[in-house]
Amino acid sequence: MKIAVMGYGTIGSGVVEVLEINKEKIAKRAGEPIEVKYVLDLREFPGTPIENKIVHDYKVIAEDPEIGIVVETMGGVEPAFTFVKAMLEAGKQVATSNKNLVAAKGAELIKVARDHGVNFQFEASVGGGIPIIRPLNKCLTADEIEEITGILNGTTNYMLTKMTEEGADFDEVLKDAQDKGYAEKDPTADIEGYDPCRKIAILTSLVAGQQVDFEDIHCEGITKITPEDIKYAKAMHRAIKLLASSRKVGDSYTCLVAPYMIDDTHPLSGVNGVFNGVFLRGNVLGDAMFYGSGAGKLPTASAVVADVVDMTKHQNTNIYIDWKPEKLTLVSYDDSVNSFFVRTDSPKSEVEAVFGHVDYIEDVVDGEYAFTTGDMTEKDFADKASKINVINRIRL
Amino acid sequence: MKIAVMGYGTIGSGVVEVLEINKEKIAKRAGEPIEVKYVLDLREFPGTPIENKIVHDYKVIAEDPEIGIVVETMGGVEPAFTFVKAMLEAGKQVATSNKNLVAAKGAELIKVARDHGVNFQFEASVGGGIPIIRPLNKCLTADEIEEITGILNGTTNYMLTKMTEEGADFDEVLKDAQDKGYAEKDPTADIEGYDPCRKIAILTSLVAGQQVDFEDIHCEGITKITPEDIKYAKAMHRAIKLLASSRKVGDSYTCLVAPYMIDDTHPLSGVNGVFNGVFLRGNVLGDAMFYGSGAGKLPTASAVVADVVDMTKHQNTNIYIDWKPEKLTLVSYDDSVNSFFVRTDSPKSEVEAVFGHVDYIEDVVDGEYAFTTGDMTEKDFADKASKINVINRIRL
Repeated sequence: MKIAVMGYGTIGSGVVEVLEINKEKIAKRAGEPIEVKYVLDLREFPGTPIENKIVHDYKVIAEDPEIGIVVETMGGVEPAFTFVKAMLEAGKQVATSNKNLVAAKGAELIKVARDHGVNFQFEASVGGGIPIIRPLNKCLTADEIEEITGILNGTTNYMLTKMTEEGADFDEVLKDAQDKGYAEKDPTADIEGYDPCRKIAILTSLVAGQQVDFEDIHCEGITKITPEDIKYAKAMHRAIKLLASSRKVGDSYTCLVAPYMIDDTHPLSGVNGVFNGVFLRGNVLGDAMFYGSGAGKLPTASAVVADVVDMTKHQNTNIYIDWKPEKLTLVSYDDSVNSFFVRTDSPKSEVEAVFGHVDYIEDVVDGEYAFTTGDMTEKDFADKASKINVINRIRL
Repeated sequence: MKIAVMGYGTIGSGVVEVLEINKEKIAKRAGEPIEVKYVLDLREFPGTPIENKIVHDYKVIAEDPEIGIVVETMGGVEPAFTFVKAMLEAGKQVATSNKNLVAAKGAELIKVARDHGVNFQFEASVGGGIPIIRPLNKCLTADEIEEITGILNGTTNYMLTKMTEEGADFDEVLKDAQDKGYAEKDPTADIEGYDPCRKIAILTSLVAGQQVDFEDIHCEGITKITPEDIKYAKAMHRAIKLLASSRKVGDSYTCLVAPYMIDDTHPLSGVNGVFNGVFLRGNVLGDAMFYGSGAGKLPTASAVVADVVDMTKHQNTNIYIDWKPEKLTLVSYDDSVNSFFVRTDSPKSEVEAVFGHVDYIEDVVDGEYAFTTGDMTEKDFADKASKINVINRIRL
């Protein structure tokens, strides 16, 4: 099997490395050796083992009948979409790690692949090395998935873990994460939750069997989390995690990306540092959780290569993926139901006049206290919260 | 697709129930409706929906050309083996939840299936509803698996969790587990570790690609764990778990079933109650963990039905499973390397004369103390331990 890798950045070079490190094991499992014939990149890599494999024009790959599988690790929607579509139309199978491409164009590319008798796979686009896409498609087929909730961003999870362990504030841990290479110079996509938002859109599309647009998902990042919030969380035996969550409600789903305070007994509460976790609940399976490295060169490349192995074994078979292009209308944000942790310095009488009976958490931070609500809609909460002075609020 | 269920006990009746509960979802994913035509059982079930499906002779199923898939949920090696083999030889695909059958005859039945162009699948035999067999075969194909360690028995995990939470002793929690139906009247297979021993034999066979006999695996249960051990564990920020573990050492594996004291930061430390967890380490993936219901009627049936869906989609394709009948010689127990927690009342001078430098844990239980060793072989430890008075010892 001769393959091409488009984009020789962190993940692309990782793919070449994993294919070399585990060459024999992979050949055995794929049923034949897998060889990288081309690497598409704008740059040259003189003096490296891929020096003679570099091409700058994707058409060289599309037009080479020897190439059976193409790996896309360029990132971004364009030109990745144009290139990937051309490869599928040329009868080549494609594996990608590109969440932006899959969230925006997944349903379309799955259809193009099916129309051309090839496969488009994207295990590495969510949860890095953690097997989650294939388990959803192939393993949890006896279940109705009622909830899928993930810690899907290693950068923010590292930052929240660090804030919890050291009592440090947001700016400090962001700088530390940047120094360690976990956060980008422009950390917006991570800290504002845009990255996990695309990932939960992909997972929800797979669970629902139709297109979920990430633009429709309400998304809050971790920029408003303070050391005081962490103190409350500890006092309440809870952990603050940035969750990307999707729950079935009737025939639709309610989706949200936001920080949550989860109980210490929740399977995701122990997912710390740069690790990711995906929790799901099936109507017959009950609770399950998948945990592992959500990012990083080799773990992510491991998932891409697993797709390559799978596609090598399925050269003339379309692996069915249930993700139709018709758009799913999510439950509106206003109608989404959550319960809330609220910090305030308003008199309790005011709080009770607005929220009725609540549970109090006191003596954690001077000059304020907190309370927790039962389930209520986001709109109801926002209306009520506007009538008292809210220092911060986090979903439970 | 018409199927037969052999054995209408807990899991078998669960399979019929899951097929009914999620009928439409399952038909969509399988590509066609799945209908139970026969249920093989010694008993009659008058007045139930399967009343007219009961047969007492497995040959009725084997000889019916309409039957494409047979589910085996009888348990035990015989007559399950005879029946399953006959079904495969008759060209029927088989899904089983039977760990005893798979551990003893897995390699042989995979070969019989391959010789007859059909599939033999056993997702439910390890970890109940948790997808682990298929992820190993289909997802982690880019990795060399260096370690696979599981909490694979819900009964003993429930008991250890209860001992930890309530400080109760072994006999009390066993009675409680029996009252709740988590433990059998004869709990030997669980509390002595025989059940997880078969499961780690299956997982190691899949990782190694050849037969691992469970009889070759040293197996210790939880009967010697006391409330005092739990006190030490808490003081050390550790949890006592019955682990079934397999680690790659050169070209072989070292396998062991025994209670371990694992650190609070280990992904398996949060696997509590009747839940199961499987931790693994790949040479490129790094650490990963799968968590969920390790037993129970519907979760286990969910995994069996997922096999049925997969086989319905692969009616004329053999799904390759790398598990050859040639027996793998494991690293001998004596040569296995572990580190140890040891409780003693011998003078420290004696301990240090034998073990050299050790770390002490004191003031946990009156009249004794404990220490931890570095890595050493089981033989070396046993020799040294015989020279002092050991109250209990647990691996780390």
